[in-house]
Amino acid sequence: MSRFWSPLVHTLTPYVPGEQPRLADLVKLNTNESPYGPSPRALAAMHAAVDDSLRLYPDPQALDLRTALGKRVGLSAECVFVGNGSDEVLAHAFQAFFAHGAPVLFADVTYSFYTVYCGLYGLPYRQVPLDGAMRVVVEDYAGPCSGVVLANPNAPTGIALGLDDIRRLLALQPDRVVLVDEAYVDFGAQSAASLVAEYPNLLVVQTFSKSRALAGLRVGFAFGQPELIEALTRVKDSFNSYPLDRLALVGATAAAEDEEWLTLSVGRVIHSRATLTEGLESLGFEVLPSAANFVYMRHPDRDAADIAARLREQAIIVRHLKGERTAAWLRVTIGTDAQCQTLLAALRDILHRNT
Amino acid sequence: MSRFWSPLVHTLTPYVPGEQPRLADLVKLNTNESPYGPSPRALAAMHAAVDDSLRLYPDPQALDLRTALGKRVGLSAECVFVGNGSDEVLAHAFQAFFAHGAPVLFADVTYSFYTVYCGLYGLPYRQVPLDGAMRVVVEDYAGPCSGVVLANPNAPTGIALGLDDIRRLLALQPDRVVLVDEAYVDFGAQSAASLVAEYPNLLVVQTFSKSRALAGLRVGFAFGQPELIEALTRVKDSFNSYPLDRLALVGATAAAEDEEWLTLSVGRVIHSRATLTEGLESLGFEVLPSAANFVYMRHPDRDAADIAARLREQAIIVRHLKGERTAAWLRVTIGTDAQCQTLLAALRDILHRNT
Repeated sequence: MSRFWSPLVHTLTPYVPGEQPRLADLVKLNTNESPYGPSPRALAAMHAAVDDSLRLYPDPQALDLRTALGKRVGLSAECVFVGNGSDEVLAHAFQAFFAHGAPVLFADVTYSFYTVYCGLYGLPYRQVPLDGAMRVVVEDYAGPCSGVVLANPNAPTGIALGLDDIRRLLALQPDRVVLVDEAYVDFGAQSAASLVAEYPNLLVVQTFSKSRALAGLRVGFAFGQPELIEALTRVKDSFNSYPLDRLALVGATAAAEDEEWLTLSVGRVIHSRATLTEGLESLGFEVLPSAANFVYMRHPDRDAADIAARLREQAIIVRHLKGERTAAWLRVTIGTDAQCQTLLAALRDILHRNT
Repeated sequence: MSRFWSPLVHTLTPYVPGEQPRLADLVKLNTNESPYGPSPRALAAMHAAVDDSLRLYPDPQALDLRTALGKRVGLSAECVFVGNGSDEVLAHAFQAFFAHGAPVLFADVTYSFYTVYCGLYGLPYRQVPLDGAMRVVVEDYAGPCSGVVLANPNAPTGIALGLDDIRRLLALQPDRVVLVDEAYVDFGAQSAASLVAEYPNLLVVQTFSKSRALAGLRVGFAFGQPELIEALTRVKDSFNSYPLDRLALVGATAAAEDEEWLTLSVGRVIHSRATLTEGLESLGFEVLPSAANFVYMRHPDRDAADIAARLREQAIIVRHLKGERTAAWLRVTIGTDAQCQTLLAALRDILHRNT
């Protein structure tokens, strides 16, 4: 307790991100980073921008980046919002759309930052249980609420809904914003960006941190009709006029324009995911069908926390989330093929040693 | 009005930053950027960091940067907070410290973002008038409040208080946080960082955007005792785990360690300020005594908005703020000596043409 703190500060339960160890030679499969570097065009653009012009403020409207992002999906810049990572975009969206005196709805097993935002902005929420197969059931999101947040594909499960499901969800809550968090969409799900023109209550959030391999640059974005983008802009301009620095702006713009690199990079991850899943299943793991750059798995006989600890002894880091619904599971980022093989060998060893 | 917006969004009056025109060949003296480039060591560090490691998240604790910043002023990293520009640091501070059911106190002529933060977080505030010479009178900040925010040097006036004044202010409000916003401190004021160990209610906020010539990189920071830094960290970790990207972290760390460059660069601005002030006074302007990288001035016979408009016709941009207390004044960033001469020649021409 501190006499100086606002009462809110005492109540906060901050988000705990996956560990970023300061060790070399790790097989780091815990925070869903890309195993491959970002677009060479993005790197070149950033190199060119490291100069004396950094003395000047960046474009507070980020117009070039918003235009490039919109162009990909057939939307104008006024339908695009950008922020300092999708976490910032999500934070602004929770504040901008979800204070209507009813709970925000999201899955009981999903991105754990959603409850943290609710704490920060004093928003009630209701966690809607996934079904027995860890799937989202759209019909469960009916009824009075302040809004709906759906991670698609969901994390940590990796399971995706199709656009028909998203349409049904949007139709269930026509007077509330449905936020579709598509952090992992490029790895095998369909983006709802194509529905923006049709649904005024749809906000689609994406990031450069996963498929674009720019977690270190902190750029996220959102698609929505101008009425929603204006709300986000009003919040942003009441918080920080220039959330994206000059290097992030040019790097992300170049990355957004490099479709070829994206296709190639995502294709490699999808290929590795199939091989890894097969290997894991052959070791007896149950692996959920993933449309993301990670897999979610459990072993019928083995304790997940124990497996994670033993992997760590071999310098392999995966993510184990505590909690009733998640304690039996491990979330494993898709690494390079070599990293996937290292992981499989280590797991084989761990399972073998104790039988 | 929008049925989707949170009620708050309708009430917001966002901050309007100084214009960032997309034109070349401007004499841009409107947003207090440095006329010189950043430290070459900072540029070198950023060049070296533009590589495949951008696929990885940055250090969410920003430990290297916080250590480097603390070292300069004899504080440990646990007394240092960093954020995405000092605007973000200020926003978190308003939320973390100023909700105690009484107004936040700040000057009636000061950084206009302070009222915006109060709007964003629903905080009442009271604007304390500067005296007739546009100076802060410390004794006016007594009485019940939720906290005090003091820009030192103040903006847009440029006038600084000494550390004795800051001590008196801290003693007036021992149970409330006194936030000293030192965006411009390196240009001629004394930093209150030296008082942090002594005063648990002191938070000192600085930025890389002005004296460090890295406005384009978006890095701000704060010094305070660990109790205050913990509150900021709790808010930050409930909002965005990784507000500083990898390039900003290494660039700012290198810049923080380059004292020689800072001394040289600031010295040039201070020298130009003296010459410019003399020139302006010889044209009949009243110029307030500035400890910042700008001057605040008015002409006894001429309309400030008109002067600004005429300068703009000559591709020289300065800042004119509307409002009863500020409409007669112009805020002019200290540019290079050549830019200062261009400005003086243009003003001479404008004053001459109409007499």
